[in-house]
Amino acid sequence: MSDKLRAGSANQAELHGYFIEDLAPGMTAIYAKTVTEADVILFAGISGDDNPLHLNEDFAAASRFGRRIVHGLLSAGFISAAIGTRLPGPGAIYMSQSLRFTAPVSIGDTVSARVTITEVSRVTKRAKLATVCRVGETVVIDGEAEVWVPARG
Amino acid sequence: MSDKLRAGSANQAELHGYFIEDLAPGMTAIYAKTVTEADVILFAGISGDDNPLHLNEDFAAASRFGRRIVHGLLSAGFISAAIGTRLPGPGAIYMSQSLRFTAPVSIGDTVSARVTITEVSRVTKRAKLATVCRVGETVVIDGEAEVWVPARG
Amino acid sequence: MSDKLRAGSANQAELHGYFIEDLAPGMTAIYAKTVTEADVILFAGISGDDNPLHLNEDFAAASRFGRRIVHGLLSAGFISAAIGTRLPGPGAIYMSQSLRFTAPVSIGDTVSARVTITEVSRVTKRAKLATVCRVGETVVIDGEAEVWVPARG
Amino acid sequence: MSDKLRAGSANQAELHGYFIEDLAPGMTAIYAKTVTEADVILFAGISGDDNPLHLNEDFAAASRFGRRIVHGLLSAGFISAAIGTRLPGPGAIYMSQSLRFTAPVSIGDTVSARVTITEVSRVTKRAKLATVCRVGETVVIDGEAEVWVPARG
Repeated sequence: MSDKLRAGSANQAELHGYFIEDLAPGMTAIYAKTVTEADVILFAGISGDDNPLHLNEDFAAASRFGRRIVHGLLSAGFISAAIGTRLPGPGAIYMSQSLRFTAPVSIGDTVSARVTITEVSRVTKRAKLATVCRVGETVVIDGEAEVWVPARG
Repeated sequence: MSDKLRAGSANQAELHGYFIEDLAPGMTAIYAKTVTEADVILFAGISGDDNPLHLNEDFAAASRFGRRIVHGLLSAGFISAAIGTRLPGPGAIYMSQSLRFTAPVSIGDTVSARVTITEVSRVTKRAKLATVCRVGETVVIDGEAEVWVPARG
Repeated sequence: MSDKLRAGSANQAELHGYFIEDLAPGMTAIYAKTVTEADVILFAGISGDDNPLHLNEDFAAASRFGRRIVHGLLSAGFISAAIGTRLPGPGAIYMSQSLRFTAPVSIGDTVSARVTITEVSRVTKRAKLATVCRVGETVVIDGEAEVWVPARG
Repeated sequence: MSDKLRAGSANQAELHGYFIEDLAPGMTAIYAKTVTEADVILFAGISGDDNPLHLNEDFAAASRFGRRIVHGLLSAGFISAAIGTRLPGPGAIYMSQSLRFTAPVSIGDTVSARVTITEVSRVTKRAKLATVCRVGETVVIDGEAEVWVPARG
């Protein structure tokens, strides 16, 4: 393939994220998004979780939180976005994720998911990340992820 | 409110799932759904996880799996559905979830999420559940959830 | 307002459909669309109807139809489109709709909804319509609608 | 198949709802949800019913209701949810539905759909249900459904 074509067409390597050799403890990345009512409706449809705590204002008003709250796994999706698109990014394989839901998220809240490398093994090609979601300064999800990351060589 | 009105209008209690007193180890429930391309596209939009492993057939063809795979947290959503709508059902609050992604899920696969009560504490109002997703007999996600469940009395 | 501006800005009257004086028995209109997997997923999310007959290929394979079928009220939505956008169109108010689901609709089928005026009353400002949905020549929904339609004068 | 496997994998029978032998007049179930703007936008997209009464605040302000109202068939979808997921639940086939739209539904309203068995025939395997949607105490849809329900034996 000519250089001209290569420059124009999608080069798969160019889409790839970090390789295991590129990673070191302390590296960090963030993904953040405002959660809308549409996100909640769509997540209910995808997942099948139509719990009235998320979809029924009357039911939720009588609940512990007093209002509709966002599905925990919807907010956790922003961790998946940070890992899958930024650190390590495309090419990494999700091995595990633990999640502690420490505070409720409301529709309209902006959730930021920060992921920070804590361990890297070139032998197993695995890395661990601390994964924390916040609304403002409040931690709403705390957890840890493990990913498998391809090697360059 | 008259009994007649109560029978007709939405009684919030009627929408409620199990209470902590109703739960015992061994109780189990299942939610199952075929994962479609639309689910993957919508989940990418909601979560921001547009990793080409999920959305780009060319990139995925060159990956370890050889084809686009489904977001791990999308399949995990079926656990949320089983917990949030069946066992314990509406009223329960998600406290934590651990997830090990043990095999890839492809578009078109039917994923079943089984949740089984393993521990119940009336004192803390918390219950633990084993949470397992399968495609056919293959375990694709293995993990554990903890929920807070309201008491009747 | 100048004629020029009026021509450019949205004139509400211009968006209006037929008035009761415009309608006569025999007038007919059609709306048709291919039902996609995405439509079914989204309808499940909006309505809360995540019946496995619509969403779970394994469950549906063991059912009377042998495959996933489309929600009946999703196909009925095309009648709503024909009435609400074509005949009588914007301004009409839906008073009633009866629906007989006479054959299953599969994902990928193109459903056409034909509505035909059968009765018009200028006194009550109401019109009746025969409403029939077909896939090819097969009738999949048969029913009748009644609408209230504003008068011009 | 071993008992162990059966306990773990998705047993289709476990997803099934009531059988015809289980049903009796007076049995009732409810599904309730707050209708959001996202629901209305998505329903318009799925159904093709982009009537400005539902989507255009300027047009709707000049209408009989003075504001955008929710598609009647969207609210009717909650009846489909109650029937398809609760009573009789998965396995039942929708044969017919009549709908009288008795009051408008606004974005933000919480609609509850109650379905109540009125007739059961083991011979024809059919059941009739009274189907009523309310916002608070106000009936917004009144109607009747007929379903075909599989027999156990």
